[in-house]
Amino acid sequence: MPLLSSTKQQFFQIAKAGCIVVTLGFAFAGNALAQRTIAEQFIQDMKDGKVSEAGAEDHVVQELIIKRSIPITYKYINNLMSTPNAFGPGVACTVCHNSNDPSKSYRGLDLSTCKGMIEGTTEKPKHTIFTPGKDPKRDHLIRRLRNNRMPLGMGFENSTFTPNHMLVKQWIADGAKNDDNFKKNVLPLFSTANAFGPNAPACTACHMSNQEPPSFHELNLTTYEGIMLGADSVAKGVDKATKVIIPGKPELSFVWQHLAEDRMPPGISPSEARDHPNTTILSAWIKQGAKCD
Amino acid sequence: MPLLSSTKQQFFQIAKAGCIVVTLGFAFAGNALAQRTIAEQFIQDMKDGKVSEAGAEDHVVQELIIKRSIPITYKYINNLMSTPNAFGPGVACTVCHNSNDPSKSYRGLDLSTCKGMIEGTTEKPKHTIFTPGKDPKRDHLIRRLRNNRMPLGMGFENSTFTPNHMLVKQWIADGAKNDDNFKKNVLPLFSTANAFGPNAPACTACHMSNQEPPSFHELNLTTYEGIMLGADSVAKGVDKATKVIIPGKPELSFVWQHLAEDRMPPGISPSEARDHPNTTILSAWIKQGAKCD
Amino acid sequence: MPLLSSTKQQFFQIAKAGCIVVTLGFAFAGNALAQRTIAEQFIQDMKDGKVSEAGAEDHVVQELIIKRSIPITYKYINNLMSTPNAFGPGVACTVCHNSNDPSKSYRGLDLSTCKGMIEGTTEKPKHTIFTPGKDPKRDHLIRRLRNNRMPLGMGFENSTFTPNHMLVKQWIADGAKNDDNFKKNVLPLFSTANAFGPNAPACTACHMSNQEPPSFHELNLTTYEGIMLGADSVAKGVDKATKVIIPGKPELSFVWQHLAEDRMPPGISPSEARDHPNTTILSAWIKQGAKCD
Repeated sequence: MPLLSSTKQQFFQIAKAGCIVVTLGFAFAGNALAQRTIAEQFIQDMKDGKVSEAGAEDHVVQELIIKRSIPITYKYINNLMSTPNAFGPGVACTVCHNSNDPSKSYRGLDLSTCKGMIEGTTEKPKHTIFTPGKDPKRDHLIRRLRNNRMPLGMGFENSTFTPNHMLVKQWIADGAKNDDNFKKNVLPLFSTANAFGPNAPACTACHMSNQEPPSFHELNLTTYEGIMLGADSVAKGVDKATKVIIPGKPELSFVWQHLAEDRMPPGISPSEARDHPNTTILSAWIKQGAKCD
Repeated sequence: MPLLSSTKQQFFQIAKAGCIVVTLGFAFAGNALAQRTIAEQFIQDMKDGKVSEAGAEDHVVQELIIKRSIPITYKYINNLMSTPNAFGPGVACTVCHNSNDPSKSYRGLDLSTCKGMIEGTTEKPKHTIFTPGKDPKRDHLIRRLRNNRMPLGMGFENSTFTPNHMLVKQWIADGAKNDDNFKKNVLPLFSTANAFGPNAPACTACHMSNQEPPSFHELNLTTYEGIMLGADSVAKGVDKATKVIIPGKPELSFVWQHLAEDRMPPGISPSEARDHPNTTILSAWIKQGAKCD
Repeated sequence: MPLLSSTKQQFFQIAKAGCIVVTLGFAFAGNALAQRTIAEQFIQDMKDGKVSEAGAEDHVVQELIIKRSIPITYKYINNLMSTPNAFGPGVACTVCHNSNDPSKSYRGLDLSTCKGMIEGTTEKPKHTIFTPGKDPKRDHLIRRLRNNRMPLGMGFENSTFTPNHMLVKQWIADGAKNDDNFKKNVLPLFSTANAFGPNAPACTACHMSNQEPPSFHELNLTTYEGIMLGADSVAKGVDKATKVIIPGKPELSFVWQHLAEDRMPPGISPSEARDHPNTTILSAWIKQGAKCD
């Protein structure tokens, strides 16, 4: 390579030469001439500045694995299910969920086989825990790994069957109306400390208006209108706000899910990252079709 | 559900209704009408307030797994043996213990198979490391995972064959008598810093009376009577105090075990929790019979 | 054992007696009378004071596994490749490297099988990642686990194809001469902040002389002579200093490797220990011949 008078010119020359070399390399790599390898695509994306900056581990998974559609193998998913600390500190999923016999395994959920994962719980009410090929973010498996039980700090040992829990559940089941029962019995619970367990702040300590900060998720649990409006109404717009109450269906209502469902593995601290890289990989496997081979 | 005049009454009504619904659910769940599923039993225990409060991870294992006798599979035990960091930071057990050939594997101990785990060490003196169906707390496998070598901070690189170690061992082997040898040669070792390794406090710095605090385990190593009385004599009563010396049998004497046995995995800090959830699960598998299928 | 008048004499007597007992034990242990077991050798080394003192986890691996040539099984290596956090926080190697098809797996590198590990990358330029039986410290597999990308803090998302990177690479490829191009275009890059990425100190902030401290690895990147002299010229002597530039071969030059290669698993912090116990074990398996059975 000849020296050029201008350093800047040289930069471009050398950079271009580098590109040519690499591009020629592309032509011979892999079996198909036309198909880029994953590494080639990543290198090109780096050059084009399409790889976004961030330091966190989950971001790495996004950039290297998710964006480039690396096929996730069931073998790795099987490892995740049976390895301690796979999704943050805690025992492996398969300790409690390793058989479809509900007298041996919680919910009759068998996470030790691909078939069992796809089948879901066998204890009534039977339900799947994800749908192959679909985004599983709101489905049982992923939300149990990501969603902290509310109020923050409530451990699994605190009942989710208290009268106050039942009041909220029944109100949603009955249609989530702005009636006397709601005003007198339900709404006050959200602004009362210890309403859903000991040593707990009121829900409204964190969810008190549509402004974030200070209100997490722009969620306002102080009024009927705020509750029915839902979360992130400023960020997404009022029409696209995330509904947290589905009238008649407590199981689908985020308010109820968060009051009733413990995050897994049991005992994990709410301060552990919700977007664990392995949770992201598990989601990717599901989106890719939850293939068993 | 009709609104009632009193909120309190309503609590009970709704709670009761909730219970009825769940109870009806019970009748149809599982194959056997009479047998409760694990999940059902746990829910009932939560309602009955039988689930005790605590935050730590091992407590979760107690409540969810041990109390409800979740059957532990050998497959998970095999994972624990072959996975790094399974019992706290450190390499996997099977790195050093993966064959019954003592020229390849420490003690000829094969932790990579169920048969090998049950057989124990093959190097003489051969011994099992637990008894299937029995509480393994004092047996080799579990005590090597739980018991810190004393004095705290002594790493595996500090010999357990020093003259002072031998003096204690021989004294126990000879019957642990309150004789001149004991008074002149053995007893003083417990109150001497660095007696069993460099930069070590005296044993009596932590075990100096029957009062806890300040004396750990209510153990008094300052007198013959204190040593022979044993640990936890206040908490359990003098008759049920835990003997720390078994005359004639140093290998069964806790004093000798703690002086001579390094905690595994090698290099683990004594500050790591002794009741690791996976140690609890390993113990449960043994108590359940150490089944290989 | 009779009591002796002198405590010191007794020490030796008892210690000797202890040794005799143990030595007799040796004679019967194992299949071959002549061959010591690993445990026996370790005990003897402890007695002889040949076990060196240190507290760190990797030291334990050195003393217990490496020095005594414990045979590492492929089964454990396979676990390491497929287990999250095996070499520090991060996803498992096999998530991205699990097939020899470069359209599915980065570099067409299959770390999920022993054959794939030995074959190395299948994407052109094909290359092995270690040589069975040889010290792998400088080879791809181990150096990607140990070497931090420079400047410290540069994440994988920062291009290694910037014009400045290309200038260094091309200068080495062209023979690493002390010519005008070097003086005007290359040398200044080493003393310029942000030359190889955003928010980065200059190379010479850490490598500015042959004195350590303050200059890491006694490496001086401020002059042509310093660069060509290499690292650790004081500790090893000028003749044995570690060359960091191999004229004509950027891929073999440590300067280029450190500028261009990200440490694995991706996202791992440079502050994580480079000598992870499992990296040491992986190296030992390679040195032992990378046996697949």
